[in-house]
Amino acid sequence: MEPLFLITNDDGHASPGLHLLAQVAQEFGEVVVMAPEHNASGVAASITCSRPLRVRVIDESPRCRRFACDGTPADCVKMGLEHFCHRKPDLVLSGINYGSNASINIIYSGTMGAVLEACLNGCQAIGFSLLNHNPAADFEACAPSIRHLLRQVLEHPLPEWTALNVNIPRLPADQIKGIKVCRQARAVWNDSLEPRTDPHGRPYWWMTGKFICNDMGADTDQKALEDGFVSVVPVRPDMTDHPAIAQLQHLTLSK
Amino acid sequence: MEPLFLITNDDGHASPGLHLLAQVAQEFGEVVVMAPEHNASGVAASITCSRPLRVRVIDESPRCRRFACDGTPADCVKMGLEHFCHRKPDLVLSGINYGSNASINIIYSGTMGAVLEACLNGCQAIGFSLLNHNPAADFEACAPSIRHLLRQVLEHPLPEWTALNVNIPRLPADQIKGIKVCRQARAVWNDSLEPRTDPHGRPYWWMTGKFICNDMGADTDQKALEDGFVSVVPVRPDMTDHPAIAQLQHLTLSK
Repeated sequence: MEPLFLITNDDGHASPGLHLLAQVAQEFGEVVVMAPEHNASGVAASITCSRPLRVRVIDESPRCRRFACDGTPADCVKMGLEHFCHRKPDLVLSGINYGSNASINIIYSGTMGAVLEACLNGCQAIGFSLLNHNPAADFEACAPSIRHLLRQVLEHPLPEWTALNVNIPRLPADQIKGIKVCRQARAVWNDSLEPRTDPHGRPYWWMTGKFICNDMGADTDQKALEDGFVSVVPVRPDMTDHPAIAQLQHLTLSK
Repeated sequence: MEPLFLITNDDGHASPGLHLLAQVAQEFGEVVVMAPEHNASGVAASITCSRPLRVRVIDESPRCRRFACDGTPADCVKMGLEHFCHRKPDLVLSGINYGSNASINIIYSGTMGAVLEACLNGCQAIGFSLLNHNPAADFEACAPSIRHLLRQVLEHPLPEWTALNVNIPRLPADQIKGIKVCRQARAVWNDSLEPRTDPHGRPYWWMTGKFICNDMGADTDQKALEDGFVSVVPVRPDMTDHPAIAQLQHLTLSK
């Protein structure tokens, strides 16, 4: 039986990054696309509880069925898994995102929110992002790295409850130096809300900011990307700071 | 100098859980509240990039200045830290949330999204949630546990880049057995999208689901809560699965 892929993203169903990813996945097997109707960047693992969700059929070609859902990327994964895949997918893919989800960007990422949702549901899952926000970004240059990773993960399944956050440098395919398995670099967005005044004299603020990364350890995703490598960070939906449990025993209380 | 608290939540600025939290914090110091205009449950660490943000003054009492922002909980933290606190707060608090953010609920939680945002910005931060969705929930019963934890954390600062996810069982204050420091239990929401048909014969889906937790290890937050304890999970904004880095070296590639 050939592999089944469920594919989503956070840039919306019409994004060229999604099309490239679906195209590469079809070289390996059958594809179901369930992607947001509209751009959902920065929504993390948001889910929609206050209104019902709708699904629109875009294309029912047998090897690549495509649907749009008016929810978040995590909603799309739930919808795809529960109601539009005829069996559990072998791999859930998300992306290719316009722009980096390396380092702490994962915290805000809709692309990676979808990946975490798939992982929670017991699926193998990979998120792909390209370090390029340009609408004309060359997603084609990502194809060889994606092909390598899909082949590897289909042959050697990921550890249970582990997913991958893959970021791809903005380089022509033949200038990408290789692939490195890394940890998430520590960083922060500074000066993130720019104040302005509207024509009526009232203040408002735009989200913006400078990405500040002082953690360029040789084992970080930021360093790998800067050196021209694709970064692969194994991630898991466990936020526990395990070493801190022992350190914080003074917080315990027994009556 | 007395401690400064920045307080937010995801249920909106009018929530009684937020009021109780601000009230307890005022026993220790000065408070700035920057909370969402409306309910923002399930938005995780979402940020608002596609439109500008507005802030509305609710109350400018000197010991407890209160503002509402038309963004997400993470937006509120950025806004409070950058533009409405006269210095770096000693503690950022979020909650008290209506309903559990224990186990994997942290992944979807707006309450904890705010806490992660504060932590990324180098602040000490704690999220509080009560296991009760009832609008008439007794947040007062949370006060003694919150008082204990604020006192401890002000005296013994948390490790750098570590924040706390605190969940409080639905019990009268005198029946709460104590406080335990735990790890996040592994769980999943099953059957999460319920299909229905509208009066025009078209399908739609409601987010719902059953919380399935088969991980009741003695060291988990779910077990502590079931036993009548307040659970405290140290969390950090690092999603890296560190042990998996060595296991996944077959993914590396060098040209």
